[in-house]
Amino acid sequence: MGNLILALDVMSGDNGPNVILPAALQALASNSQLKLLLVGSPEILYPLLADKGAKKNNRFKIIPAQYTITNYLNLLQAIRQSKGSSMRIALELVKSGQAQACISAGNTSILIALSKIILKTIDGIERPALVTILPNKKHGKTVILDLGANIKCNSKMLVQFAGMGVIIAENIADINNPRVALLNIKTEENFGLDNIYEAALMLKKIPFINYIGYLESDELLTGKTDVFVCDGFTGNMILKTMEGVIKVILSLVKYSTTKNKISSHLIQLIQTWLQKRIIKYFSHIDPDQYNGAVLLGLHGIVIKSHGAANQKAFQAAIEQAIKAVEKQIPDVIANRLNTLLPKSD
Amino acid sequence: MGNLILALDVMSGDNGPNVILPAALQALASNSQLKLLLVGSPEILYPLLADKGAKKNNRFKIIPAQYTITNYLNLLQAIRQSKGSSMRIALELVKSGQAQACISAGNTSILIALSKIILKTIDGIERPALVTILPNKKHGKTVILDLGANIKCNSKMLVQFAGMGVIIAENIADINNPRVALLNIKTEENFGLDNIYEAALMLKKIPFINYIGYLESDELLTGKTDVFVCDGFTGNMILKTMEGVIKVILSLVKYSTTKNKISSHLIQLIQTWLQKRIIKYFSHIDPDQYNGAVLLGLHGIVIKSHGAANQKAFQAAIEQAIKAVEKQIPDVIANRLNTLLPKSD
Repeated sequence: MGNLILALDVMSGDNGPNVILPAALQALASNSQLKLLLVGSPEILYPLLADKGAKKNNRFKIIPAQYTITNYLNLLQAIRQSKGSSMRIALELVKSGQAQACISAGNTSILIALSKIILKTIDGIERPALVTILPNKKHGKTVILDLGANIKCNSKMLVQFAGMGVIIAENIADINNPRVALLNIKTEENFGLDNIYEAALMLKKIPFINYIGYLESDELLTGKTDVFVCDGFTGNMILKTMEGVIKVILSLVKYSTTKNKISSHLIQLIQTWLQKRIIKYFSHIDPDQYNGAVLLGLHGIVIKSHGAANQKAFQAAIEQAIKAVEKQIPDVIANRLNTLLPKSD
Repeated sequence: MGNLILALDVMSGDNGPNVILPAALQALASNSQLKLLLVGSPEILYPLLADKGAKKNNRFKIIPAQYTITNYLNLLQAIRQSKGSSMRIALELVKSGQAQACISAGNTSILIALSKIILKTIDGIERPALVTILPNKKHGKTVILDLGANIKCNSKMLVQFAGMGVIIAENIADINNPRVALLNIKTEENFGLDNIYEAALMLKKIPFINYIGYLESDELLTGKTDVFVCDGFTGNMILKTMEGVIKVILSLVKYSTTKNKISSHLIQLIQTWLQKRIIKYFSHIDPDQYNGAVLLGLHGIVIKSHGAANQKAFQAAIEQAIKAVEKQIPDVIANRLNTLLPKSD
C-alpha cells in the first residue's frame, strides 16, 4: 500500500499539542509510509515543532485552524460554532479525501455529531457507535459496542450495532459466523428494558445473524459470545467499572508486601511479573495502553482518543487509525451490511 | 435482645430445601437466640429434616405452604397466583409480626412486587431498592443502590434512593455526613439521561443531603463518595461486571505458573496468599461469601438471597437478616427520612 495520510486534531484533548505533537513525530519516525496533516494553530505549532527539533519536510503539514472546540460548550453551541475549528477541519479533510482517517481527543458527543454531519452515516445505520475488542478467558476476542457514542438507544440502533459488531468480528477479529448476545440483567424473557426486548425479537428474525440471546455482564470476559451489544450508557459504565476494578487489584498486588514471611526481593519479583501479566491481559481496556476507539458506521474513518491521553496513548490511537485504514472498515461495513441486515423502513 | 424469629421461604431458589434446610440448621446451631419459621411443603421438609437428624424442638417450626412461585411465571401471573405460596406466607409472617424478617431466594421482581403489596413501602418511598456496601481503596465503605430492584427509575426514585443510602451510610457504615454521588458517564452537566440530570437538580436543592455531583463507574472503589446512586439496571450491570473481572483475575493468578524460573512450590504459596487477599477484599461482591441484599424502603425486613446460593451463601443471607433486625433498618429509615427528604407531592 502506498501513502497513508491521517489528519490529527492537534488542539484537542486535555493536553492538546503538548502531547499530540510528540506522539505525531514519534509515529512518523516509526512508520515511513505515514504522512500527517496537523490541524491547529500555526502560532502554537511552529514554535513547538522547532522546540522538538522537527525540520520541515513533506511528511507533515500544518493545516491552520482558527480555534478549538472546548468541552465547555454544549452540543448545539459547539456545532453552530464549529466552522473553522480544528475538529471540523480534520473531519473535512477526510470528507474531501485529503486524509484517509482523522483522530481527535475532543469531546465525544461533539465529535460524533460533527462526524455525522460531515461524513454522514452508512446507509442503514442511524447513529455511529464506539467499538472495542476485549480479550476473553478462552484466549479469544470479544467485540463490544456501543461504548458511549449513544446514551439512549432504540431497538433498531441496537440491531444495527449487532450488524456492525458481526462485521468487525468477522473482519478484524477473524471469527467465523460470530455469535451475538444482547447485554441484559437477569430477568424473565419478556421483562427488562423495552429497547433490549424489542431488539431481541428483531435479531431472532434475522437469518444472517447468529443471535444467541441475553447474557449478563459477568459473562463479558468468558467468551460465551463473540459480539456483545448494548447501549452507550451501559457500555461506558461497564468499561469504566472494569478499569476501576483492575486499578484496585493492581494496587492490592502492589502494596501488600509488608507482613509476609518470604524474602521481600523475591516477592517484588513475582509481583512485578503478576502485574505485567494482568496489565498485558487487560491492555485492551487500559486507557494508557489501548486508546483510540473506532467510530463505526460513518463514510470515513474517525478515531476518538481519550481526552486525557498521554503521548503513548495518543500513539496507540494513531496506530488504531492506521489499522482501520488498512482494513478499510467503512467500505467493509457498507458492503456487508446490505446482506446482513434487512432493509430498514 | 430476646428472641429472634426469621421466616424462611424454604422452597425458593435453584436448590430449594436441599440447600436452605441445612443452612437453616447450621444457623440455629451457631446462634442460640435464633428461631426459624420454615415455610414450605411439610411432605418434603419432614423427611429431609429426619434425614439430617434434626429432632423436633421449639427453635424451628414448619409453616405449611401449598406451593412455590417458580421463575417460569410472569409477574402478573405470579402475583395473581401468590396466595398460599411459600414466598407470600413468609412475607405475611413478617406483616403479622410473627417473624421479624423473611428471606427468599425466589425471583427478584416477584419478591419485590409481593413485598410492596403485603408490607407496603415507607411513607415517601415509591419503590424499594436493593443495597450493598462495597469496600473501598481508602479502607472505608461505599453504599451503592439500587442493585436491580428497579430496572427503570425516575428522578424521584433516584432521590429517594439517595435518602435511604445516606441513612444506611450513617447507621450501618457509621459515616458522618455521608457524601452522595449520582453514577453517570462523562458528559456535559446538562446532557446524559434525563432522570439522572433531574435527580441531580433535585439533590442540589436538598439541604440535608451532602450531594457532591456525578461520578463515573471507575470511581466505585476509590472512596470519592460514600453513597453511589443509580438505577437498578445499571447497578446490576456494574456488580456483575465486577464479579466477572474478579473471576478472570483470580484465574489469571491461578493458572499462570508454568513458564517461571522460581520454584513452583513458592509460587503456589504466594498465589494462594494473593488469591486470599483479593477474595477477602472483594468478599462483599462474591456471591458465595456475601449474599442477602436488604430490600430497603419497606415496613418490614425482606432479604433477597441469590437464586443459586449454596449452603454457605444462604447462611450469609440469614446473618444479613439478623443484622438488619438488630439495626432495625425499617424504623431507622422511617424516622430519619422525614427530616432528610422534603415531603413528596
